[in-house]
Amino acid sequence: MRILFITGEGFEDTELLCPKYRFEEEGFQVDISALDWGEVKGNKGYIVSANLSIDEAEPEAFDALYVPGGKVAEKLAMHEAIIRLVRAIARLGRPMAAICHGPLLLAAAEVLTGRRATCYYKVSNSLQKAGAIYEDSPVVVDGNIVTSRQPSDIPQFMKETVRIFRET
Amino acid sequence: MRILFITGEGFEDTELLCPKYRFEEEGFQVDISALDWGEVKGNKGYIVSANLSIDEAEPEAFDALYVPGGKVAEKLAMHEAIIRLVRAIARLGRPMAAICHGPLLLAAAEVLTGRRATCYYKVSNSLQKAGAIYEDSPVVVDGNIVTSRQPSDIPQFMKETVRIFRET
Repeated sequence: MRILFITGEGFEDTELLCPKYRFEEEGFQVDISALDWGEVKGNKGYIVSANLSIDEAEPEAFDALYVPGGKVAEKLAMHEAIIRLVRAIARLGRPMAAICHGPLLLAAAEVLTGRRATCYYKVSNSLQKAGAIYEDSPVVVDGNIVTSRQPSDIPQFMKETVRIFRET
Repeated sequence: MRILFITGEGFEDTELLCPKYRFEEEGFQVDISALDWGEVKGNKGYIVSANLSIDEAEPEAFDALYVPGGKVAEKLAMHEAIIRLVRAIARLGRPMAAICHGPLLLAAAEVLTGRRATCYYKVSNSLQKAGAIYEDSPVVVDGNIVTSRQPSDIPQFMKETVRIFRET
């Protein structure tokens, strides 16, 4: 199983790193994409290496999509290439997971329209305006889309995400 | 299963938080102890709440011990109360896991004497001087003691730690 991460400068460190380690524990391959490949720094200062740029990411190459939080996830939604990539992955029926501000990127790509989802409480209005049915729960699973609110939800979020990713 | 964390100001953030979330995903209860209870800050700025002080920790109450890294783990070894606590938990035959500088605390309590273990490469000499048989591997399991080197080893480290903790 190969999982595409979409992120950028200012990611929420634990929302990227803990799921990355969790997926790798399962034997999944993690590929991190950002607008440009190379080093990307999180809010708290952790550095990860984006091994590919968004433009290089071929939707067919990945079995699942993961979007960590940090306000950067909202900013990414303003890039047409990123929206196209998320839509293409959704059209392939791949499972997706996102946490915190991450669900806003899925919503901007209209992947959450009419679907139950959650996100960081401060942006729940934006999620609803984008057409999602907001729920205030640690983890929400709707079909093959898993969303979560914040770092402290990671235990429940990872349990459901690993399950959904494995089922697909 | 109830797991005691022993840590303090300046812990390595992901080495505390990712295992905490991982254990909670398994349904384990995590109790964080420090010299004083209350807020404890990691190297990168994450704050966790120590819900008990070292003095309050009753060895019998816990099913396993976990020591995250950060140089603080070495400093903790200078406190006699902490050494006594680690030894008491070891005498009860409880499984233990430690990463990075964390194994130095186990070694100071003479829990690693004559046993295979690993740690952060910069302190491998100290680990050997303390009587452990050092191995440069992502994870080393000797009996019911699991040790690891650094954050990037967390996937393999957690896989073995969860297995050993569950077996006991």
